Amino acid sequence: MLDGGRFSGVFTPVITPFKRTLEVDTKRLIRQCSWLLQQHVGIALFGTNSEANSLSVEEKIDLLDELVAAGIQPSRLMPGTGHCALPDTVKLTRHAADLGCGGTLMLPPFYYKGVSDEGLYRSYAEIIERTGNDRLQIYLYHIPPVSQVGLSLQLIERLISAYPQTIAGIKDSSGDWENTKALLVAGWDNFRVFAGSEVFLLQTMRSGGAGCISATANINPAAIHALYRNWRSPEADSMHRQLVTLRETVQAFPMIPALKCIVAHFSHDPGWLRVRPPLIQLSDEQHKSLIDKLGALRFGLDDLA
Amino acid sequence: MLDGGRFSGVFTPVITPFKRTLEVDTKRLIRQCSWLLQQHVGIALFGTNSEANSLSVEEKIDLLDELVAAGIQPSRLMPGTGHCALPDTVKLTRHAADLGCGGTLMLPPFYYKGVSDEGLYRSYAEIIERTGNDRLQIYLYHIPPVSQVGLSLQLIERLISAYPQTIAGIKDSSGDWENTKALLVAGWDNFRVFAGSEVFLLQTMRSGGAGCISATANINPAAIHALYRNWRSPEADSMHRQLVTLRETVQAFPMIPALKCIVAHFSHDPGWLRVRPPLIQLSDEQHKSLIDKLGALRFGLDDLA
Repeated sequence: MLDGGRFSGVFTPVITPFKRTLEVDTKRLIRQCSWLLQQHVGIALFGTNSEANSLSVEEKIDLLDELVAAGIQPSRLMPGTGHCALPDTVKLTRHAADLGCGGTLMLPPFYYKGVSDEGLYRSYAEIIERTGNDRLQIYLYHIPPVSQVGLSLQLIERLISAYPQTIAGIKDSSGDWENTKALLVAGWDNFRVFAGSEVFLLQTMRSGGAGCISATANINPAAIHALYRNWRSPEADSMHRQLVTLRETVQAFPMIPALKCIVAHFSHDPGWLRVRPPLIQLSDEQHKSLIDKLGALRFGLDDLA
Repeated sequence: MLDGGRFSGVFTPVITPFKRTLEVDTKRLIRQCSWLLQQHVGIALFGTNSEANSLSVEEKIDLLDELVAAGIQPSRLMPGTGHCALPDTVKLTRHAADLGCGGTLMLPPFYYKGVSDEGLYRSYAEIIERTGNDRLQIYLYHIPPVSQVGLSLQLIERLISAYPQTIAGIKDSSGDWENTKALLVAGWDNFRVFAGSEVFLLQTMRSGGAGCISATANINPAAIHALYRNWRSPEADSMHRQLVTLRETVQAFPMIPALKCIVAHFSHDPGWLRVRPPLIQLSDEQHKSLIDKLGALRFGLDDLA
């Protein structure tokens, strides 16, 4: 999944299991990461759907260390490291880079709204300078529906010009294909454009993109990877339609608790249901409805531990 | 400013000075807090306009300790302690409560959008239970234009019912007088409603409110406190109009850099101009324009150190 020093393929913001105390359940997480890697899906640890923004920097540093200690190759990790506060982002980014993570996925600071491109540029520039690791590979994280702070084409171009060895790509979770297309046709050298989900994976690949980073790859990794691998095949459009149908079924529910519900169901492990506030798990009715709808699609996950 | 164990009066989210390295300049901050307290304005340390969301939890803990060590009474401090991640909020809130801070101003977790009242209730409940300090006094922070996660009347009422000794009040920065009015007429026992600025201070006082927490009290503390003190006087409306004119003048510029520009100008100390990214300081033209406009209003701050 690393080629030319940069990522391609399918990644997932792996969901984060919690103990009864709401501490991270590291063992369950390691097992899940190993399973995903066996399905050829890379680990975008600490993504939006990982509830990363409900974890402290210290928890994330400990988790990274424990995953690597458990034998997960850092070259297959793309942890999210962007926080509101500059020192937090620098601390976690430096740790990830020093561990040898293949890249980091980086939100802009997202509390202050209506900030300027100049301010966002200085933010990323300070992070890069202060991290001080030549091997650092940053994948920008554009998710205006959640962060409310987006990354313009002009800002991205300026960052690439200033830091061509470091600004490696982007995850576009705008949900706006025109934006993804503009990133793809910009033609920046070795810049990797990831769709924010499998919904735009096929279009992204046909336009020279690198793959996708998708929440639903937590539960549908093999099929999404199959489309990535076979995007040139005559069956690609039909494979794509199936993926979209499944995603739409899941998306009809709050995404993070729905993903946890599915993993809990197919692994017969209700511990997976737990979320940290401000999220709440699905109600019993939602739970049943989701599982019934997946049944109607003949969706299953036999190999889940 | 503490009566019946709870706050009233005028508070300001004191702006945070930075050194060239962008580290917090503790000495400048202590001087500024002392000056504000002399003007009878309480210290809502780590508010939105303090660039609090650009500071790490560790920086905030150190600052609290240093302010108290410098002789600032913790009973006059209302630090912001709400973060996205539960462990961060608990850590800082516990520290503030253990130091004896008169109260904390608490944002809800603000990364995940569209969260339920149930999830927000559990968030505050977990924070209170985990902080485990009977003296903790929480002032809820409702600022949907920035946080994008608001606090409904139903949620507030449920929190007050469950934790009447702890949920002490609210800062309403919605900019929506109808919302503030609804909070005031709810009639919750000893619940302190603060306007988000002096714009609604007079209306708030006339409806039984506790005061205001205002960014512009950084630069106009004496006059805002005078209105608070004399809200029943025949001159109150005319005092109010003057305050609003000044605030509108400042608000025509990006608020945080504008406040820093004003303090830098009147204290002859350009070090105050510095902000952390993603914010940027005013341009030379904006700077000149702001100072000129204040001059036209005959605004001055002779006593600023």
